Amino acid sequence: MRLYDFLESGNGYKVRLALRQLGIPFARVEMDIVHGATRTPEFLAKNPNGRIPTLELPDGTLLAESNAILFYLADGTPLLPDGRLERAQVLQWMFFEQYSHEPNIATSRYWLHHLEITAERRAALAEKKRLGDAALAVLETHLSRRTYFVAERYTIADIALYAYTHVAAEGGFDLEPWPAVRAWLARVAQQPGHVPITAG
Amino acid sequence: MRLYDFLESGNGYKVRLALRQLGIPFARVEMDIVHGATRTPEFLAKNPNGRIPTLELPDGTLLAESNAILFYLADGTPLLPDGRLERAQVLQWMFFEQYSHEPNIATSRYWLHHLEITAERRAALAEKKRLGDAALAVLETHLSRRTYFVAERYTIADIALYAYTHVAAEGGFDLEPWPAVRAWLARVAQQPGHVPITAG
Repeated sequence: MRLYDFLESGNGYKVRLALRQLGIPFARVEMDIVHGATRTPEFLAKNPNGRIPTLELPDGTLLAESNAILFYLADGTPLLPDGRLERAQVLQWMFFEQYSHEPNIATSRYWLHHLEITAERRAALAEKKRLGDAALAVLETHLSRRTYFVAERYTIADIALYAYTHVAAEGGFDLEPWPAVRAWLARVAQQPGHVPITAG
Repeated sequence: MRLYDFLESGNGYKVRLALRQLGIPFARVEMDIVHGATRTPEFLAKNPNGRIPTLELPDGTLLAESNAILFYLADGTPLLPDGRLERAQVLQWMFFEQYSHEPNIATSRYWLHHLEITAERRAALAEKKRLGDAALAVLETHLSRRTYFVAERYTIADIALYAYTHVAAEGGFDLEPWPAVRAWLARVAQQPGHVPITAG
């Protein structure tokens, strides 16, 4: 498999982490997304939405969207429960991640690392701070009585939410008010085969 | 089953449409989201993220996130393929919908219907117009050589993307430049058991 990736991306990290924990060998292709590497005609032919991660399977099939790739890789493994309801609950948290968490926490982190903070972006960051804190509060409520997001076991829902929660401070989010979230982050980091986001 | 819903919501419509096409009886509970009905302590106990649609199963289990609910309902039915790759492709388009399509097209429609358009929102709407048009262009590219999004058959990927694409004009999006999208919308509307968004 070939993974089109960007090392500091949490969305890329989700896929890298799952591939390593599942013991699947892969080649990583680093794409300089900050300077338009995913908007070339060549890459847009692979993913018309122009984003990483994009996974190329051995037969050339291309799969996009980090959480869809996670579901594909985890299907039939211990990282994804078999039951119909539990699978839907895993997906519930992955859709929450992409709609309510990532656009606030991950986007703030990316802007602060790579973009000039104009007055317009400063106002948008304030709104993202409010919405990102609300997302963290939802995680805290759920985790205050659970060890993992679904079925009391480590699944791709945990991988999806770990990716940007564990670097939330880089987006200006303080995790101090969320003890259940911090305890869960530590549990995830202790899983067999865990690698940090900086491991390519 | 009991569906917490809001009639004009495309996310709610996805679930209503699938329930009807699958012949599953349900009770609909209309929530006045414009006036905070999903932010009461009572509803937050059902869905800590405070959003519709939320589906309550006969045993009281609650499921949130429209596309996760779709996956749950369609599992084991003709609306969701069995194959591992095809399921991941369905999910790819559903994650695309929630990340790149809904926050631009649906949010513009909601703002124009319900919120005062301040100078700040006007600037945000211009950006949403640009990103929403880019999402429609991705749909057009994909559909220009296909009848449906995945596996050449009608699936929950089509339901998810139909919900806000067919009312995109209400968000200020012109579908005239996208003939493949318009032909696909007509095919979806001709599916057996199709109901309009206005059918409660």
